[in-house]
Amino acid sequence: MKKEVSFNIAITAGGTSENIDGIRKLTNVSTGKLGWECLKAVLNRFRSDFHVYYILTETAYHEELTENECPFVTFIPVSDAESVYNAVDKLTKSVSIDYFIHSMAISDFTFSYAAKAYEIAQEIEALQKPEGFCDDDVRFLLENPHTRIPKGEKISSDDNIIIGLKRTRKVIPLIKQNNPDTFLVGFKLLKDVSEDELIDAANQLAEKNGCDMVFANQLAHISENEHNGMLIKSGKIIARPIGKKEIAEAITPNPLKGALGATND
Amino acid sequence: MKKEVSFNIAITAGGTSENIDGIRKLTNVSTGKLGWECLKAVLNRFRSDFHVYYILTETAYHEELTENECPFVTFIPVSDAESVYNAVDKLTKSVSIDYFIHSMAISDFTFSYAAKAYEIAQEIEALQKPEGFCDDDVRFLLENPHTRIPKGEKISSDDNIIIGLKRTRKVIPLIKQNNPDTFLVGFKLLKDVSEDELIDAANQLAEKNGCDMVFANQLAHISENEHNGMLIKSGKIIARPIGKKEIAEAITPNPLKGALGATND
Repeated sequence: MKKEVSFNIAITAGGTSENIDGIRKLTNVSTGKLGWECLKAVLNRFRSDFHVYYILTETAYHEELTENECPFVTFIPVSDAESVYNAVDKLTKSVSIDYFIHSMAISDFTFSYAAKAYEIAQEIEALQKPEGFCDDDVRFLLENPHTRIPKGEKISSDDNIIIGLKRTRKVIPLIKQNNPDTFLVGFKLLKDVSEDELIDAANQLAEKNGCDMVFANQLAHISENEHNGMLIKSGKIIARPIGKKEIAEAITPNPLKGALGATND
Repeated sequence: MKKEVSFNIAITAGGTSENIDGIRKLTNVSTGKLGWECLKAVLNRFRSDFHVYYILTETAYHEELTENECPFVTFIPVSDAESVYNAVDKLTKSVSIDYFIHSMAISDFTFSYAAKAYEIAQEIEALQKPEGFCDDDVRFLLENPHTRIPKGEKISSDDNIIIGLKRTRKVIPLIKQNNPDTFLVGFKLLKDVSEDELIDAANQLAEKNGCDMVFANQLAHISENEHNGMLIKSGKIIARPIGKKEIAEAITPNPLKGALGATND
């Protein structure tokens, strides 16, 4: 996987998909189009001596590359949050990534179990003892019920269902842990918040995970034809690009200004 | 919406998407490619005096139609199970559909609520009374908890989560209820079952909803390049088509043999 070039770029794109029963799945609204625009911007700006590791989910938007472009890109397909964790960990341990654009929407939760509501209820009823029970007992049961639909069995539609979700391992902290010198661009997508709340959330993301820049946007500002948001660096808004192309150009490194120049103003 | 033609065909295609919090959603593996092959087969076979109502989900595969084909097809976009129910009900009440290919994978469940596991546990703990409680109390609480993440608010990733799912309204019974003369092709997709179990399930589907034919398949027999299954009519396997194109040709009506001829052997 290791290419001996002087500038290594990683891009993650698309939304992950957590399997429920082999037929149903938990996904998100991310299309992967912004990640693809970033790849195109990189391929436009860099001529040689670079390589892109493009980590993409099954549903992520992608096109065919030209024959000239192919040698510069390694595609790494992933599916669920766990597979992204493993792919990013492996990549960042084996390649010294200079610039990391982490635009993928990774599920915070993965499937733990599905159970019929009435069967969980029976199990909780049986917790009753003369001395009572506490919420920790119920919580443990709700997170680990005995009665559950066997993993992989298609869930029947005869009863209302409870689905337990457990947190996934966070991917973004890996990037700087494995490569403290990577320039890391993080993404924050929120819904129905004020601009100040969005900036706060972006700054928290940056601080916690060592992001050098964060692109912060909210759902209401993304549609088929529109996309805008704020590019935030060291707590300050440095750009308000409009449209995926402009966003990609603001985010992507520019070798003419020094590889990190576009963003080092 | 009503077109005065002598043969009306309806096709449903793709997988529905149940919204969780505006960003996350519950989907399924259906691509909509088989539905699209059926449309192509219809457009190949019929020359005039027909119309296709093509009900498709956001993620369903589709291509551009030619200028000649456009007047013969009405696209009806849908999203979640409830929107399919409304679209099919409206269509089958306003147009006398002759042939209905119901290939869409419609979620049996939709989102009811999301709640933190520990908050549900606290609510259940508070049910305790000297005289005890029964599983119906817990079941009611599990299906209608007070403590829930407000609808539309993005779910934070700080705690394990319980998601309550409730059954959706079944779409397939509408078709014959509204139009007893429609020739109805149903679909049954199962996972890891024997051929006999699959045939039984297909026959049950047919009996319950008045399907004139059922295409029965299982997940292991569907991939990017492969797709096979059984076409079942009056409880008997009448074809074992291989590949989406052959399946579509087996399913689709053929005006040369009388509109329903292909399947009336």
